Amino acid sequence: MKIVIAPDSFKESLSALGVADAIETGFKKVFPNATYVKIPMADGGEGTVQSLADALQGRLITVEVTAPLGNKVKAEFAISGDEQTAIIEMAAASGLHLVPIEKRDPTKTTSYGTGELIKAALDLGVKKLILGIGGSATNDGGVGMLQALGIRFLDINGKEIGFGGSALNNIEKIDRTSLDARLQNVELQVACDVNNPLCGEKGASATFGPQKGATPNMVEQLDRALAHFAKIAERDLHLNIRDQAGAGAAGGMGGGLLLLPNVQLKAGVQIVIDAVRLAEHLKDADLVITGEGRMDSQTIHGKTPIGVAKTAKANNKPVIAITGCLREDYDVVYNHGIDAVFPIIRQLGTLEETLAKGRENLESAAQNVARLYKLAH
Amino acid sequence: MKIVIAPDSFKESLSALGVADAIETGFKKVFPNATYVKIPMADGGEGTVQSLADALQGRLITVEVTAPLGNKVKAEFAISGDEQTAIIEMAAASGLHLVPIEKRDPTKTTSYGTGELIKAALDLGVKKLILGIGGSATNDGGVGMLQALGIRFLDINGKEIGFGGSALNNIEKIDRTSLDARLQNVELQVACDVNNPLCGEKGASATFGPQKGATPNMVEQLDRALAHFAKIAERDLHLNIRDQAGAGAAGGMGGGLLLLPNVQLKAGVQIVIDAVRLAEHLKDADLVITGEGRMDSQTIHGKTPIGVAKTAKANNKPVIAITGCLREDYDVVYNHGIDAVFPIIRQLGTLEETLAKGRENLESAAQNVARLYKLAH
Repeated sequence: MKIVIAPDSFKESLSALGVADAIETGFKKVFPNATYVKIPMADGGEGTVQSLADALQGRLITVEVTAPLGNKVKAEFAISGDEQTAIIEMAAASGLHLVPIEKRDPTKTTSYGTGELIKAALDLGVKKLILGIGGSATNDGGVGMLQALGIRFLDINGKEIGFGGSALNNIEKIDRTSLDARLQNVELQVACDVNNPLCGEKGASATFGPQKGATPNMVEQLDRALAHFAKIAERDLHLNIRDQAGAGAAGGMGGGLLLLPNVQLKAGVQIVIDAVRLAEHLKDADLVITGEGRMDSQTIHGKTPIGVAKTAKANNKPVIAITGCLREDYDVVYNHGIDAVFPIIRQLGTLEETLAKGRENLESAAQNVARLYKLAH
Repeated sequence: MKIVIAPDSFKESLSALGVADAIETGFKKVFPNATYVKIPMADGGEGTVQSLADALQGRLITVEVTAPLGNKVKAEFAISGDEQTAIIEMAAASGLHLVPIEKRDPTKTTSYGTGELIKAALDLGVKKLILGIGGSATNDGGVGMLQALGIRFLDINGKEIGFGGSALNNIEKIDRTSLDARLQNVELQVACDVNNPLCGEKGASATFGPQKGATPNMVEQLDRALAHFAKIAERDLHLNIRDQAGAGAAGGMGGGLLLLPNVQLKAGVQIVIDAVRLAEHLKDADLVITGEGRMDSQTIHGKTPIGVAKTAKANNKPVIAITGCLREDYDVVYNHGIDAVFPIIRQLGTLEETLAKGRENLESAAQNVARLYKLAH
C-alpha cells in the first residue's frame, strides 16, 4: 500500500514537513509496512519557502536586503537540492510585519528588497524562480523590485525616482536596457491567487491599500500613481499591465512583474503542485492524506488541501484531510474532492497549549484514521 | 447494513439518546438506507435513569422523598415502557448535591429517601429494580433505606434508632418481620463498580467519607458504627456483610442492601447491557458505534464504551467510539475492544460554547467517520 501525505503547514504549530511526519508516525502504528511518500505542501503564501525547501531537499539562504522603509533586514529564501530552483517569498524582504504599525505608509514603502532576493537567487545560477507575493507592505507596483533588477525609472530630470508608491507619479521614462540579463534564461513563476486589476475600484490601492496603512486620501493618490505607471509602461514598453488579472496583487507587484521576461502569474498551489511533481507521486497511490491548520469555506479558494484533492481526484484517489481546526462552514470541501475530514483537537485548552500539542494530537488523529481505514478494508 | 449506536450521555451536553440521534443524523448523510438501532447506554452512574428510560421506552416519575438531612425533596425515577422494570439512582434522593457544602456531615445524613423511591417503584408493581448507588451523601450503611422499606433497627430501649451514620452505634436488634413483602417477588440489581469492603482501611468510611464531609474523627466514628451494624447483622440475621466486596459502596449501602432478598451487586454497565438486551441487538450488526463525553485511561474501568466494546467483540463486531474529548492516556482502550476513537471538538472555545455545540460537532464527526468507513469499503 502506498500512502501519499501532502499537507500544508499548521501555522504557529508545525511546518508542513512536521505535519507530514506526525501523520506518518500515526499511520505507521497501524500500517507499519506501507510505503509512505511525504510531500510538504504550500499554496504560495506564508510557509511556501520552508515547505518547498523541505519537499525539494533544499536549503535556506539568508541575505541582507532593503526593508520596505529603506533600512536593512535579513531575509531568507530557499534553493532546491538540485540548485535549479529558488523559492522566494516577497514578505521575507518586503512584508508588512517588517514595518512597525505606526510607520505603515504604502506611499513610502518599497519592494526593492524583493528584487535583491531575486538577484541573490540569480547569483546562485538557478533556472527557475518561484515567487510568492502575499503579505507585502508595499503599493509601489513592484517598481522597487524592478529597480533592484536594473530597470530604470527616470523622472523629468532623467534621475532615478525614489522609493514608495507616491514616487511612481514622477515616472517619465522606463528604461529596461540595464535589466539583469540572467533573467532572460530563467523561468519566473509568480504565485498569485487574486484577480484584481492594477487600478480602479478593485485595484491594488483600493482593495489592499487600507490594510497596509493607507488613508482614503492615500488610496486615491496611490491609485493615480499606479495608473500613471501603467500609462508610461504602455507608451514606452507597449505593455498593458493595467487590466491584466492579478496585476493588482501585492500592491501592484503583479503588474510590475509583467515588465520582466518569462513571467507567469499562476495559482500558488498549482505552482507548488508542479514543483513537487505531485501528480507523478499520486499515480500509484492507494490513499492521499492532506491537511491544513484551519479548514473552512475559504479552503476551496486555492488552498492546499483542495489543490491536492483535485490532483488526486484526477486519478480517482481517495483523499482524507486532517486539520488543526474545522469551522462550521467547512463542508463545501466535500464537493471539491475531499472525502472526509478529521480535526485533531482532543480537549479544550488555551490556543498556546493546543498549538504546543499539535504533533501529538496529529499523531493520534492519524492513528485513528488509519485504524478506521484498516477496519473498513 | 445494520449499525448499532450505543453511546453513553455526554454530561452537561447531551443525553445518551441525544448522542445517538446526532450520530445517526451524521451517518444517515452517508448511509441513508442503512438500518440504525439506537440504544442509549449508561454505566449505573449519573444519567442511567434517563438512558434506560429512553432505551426501554419508559417514562420518568417524580415523587417527594426524604432528603439526606431529613427535609423533603422531589426525586425522579424511571419505569420501563412495559412497566416491569424501575430504574432508580440513589443520588436522586440521597445525593451529595442535595446537601449544601457547609452542612455535609455523614454522621447525620440518611439514605431513607432511596428506600422511599424503591417503595414508590414497588407501588407501580414492577418485577425488577435497577438501582444505581453512586454520588450519595450518606454513610449510614443503607440503614435509612432499609428503615423506609420496613426493617426495624431498635436501640437498647426497643426504640427505632435515628437517622445518620452515627446512629448505627445504637443498634441492639434488627427486625426484618415488617419488611415490605413485595420485595420477595422483585429482582433487585444494584449497579456497583467498587470492591471496597464495609469497614477498615479500604472501607466505606475511610475511602468515601472525606468527600462527603467527614473529618478524620468522624471517619473513625463512622467506621466503628458500620462495624457495629455488621456485628448485629451477623448475630441477628446470620449475614456477613462486613467483608463482602462492594459492601463499602455508597457509604455502606452495598452492605445494607444485602439485608434484602433477591439482591445482586453487579457492574453497572453490565446491568444496563442486560436491561437493553445489547448482545441480541449486536448479533447481526455490521458496525457498532459507542461514545462518552470524555475518554481516558479510566474508561477501561467499567465505563460504557468498554462494556459495549466487550459485548461487540464477543461477536467480532467492529467498534468505533466518538467522544466529547480525549485525554492523552486514552489509548489503552485499544486493548479493550475499541477499534478507533474520534473526538468531536472542531475548534477552541469556552467549555460552555463547546458543550452547546455538542450536537453539531457530533453530527459532523459521525458524518466524517461514515465517509471514511464508506471510502475504505
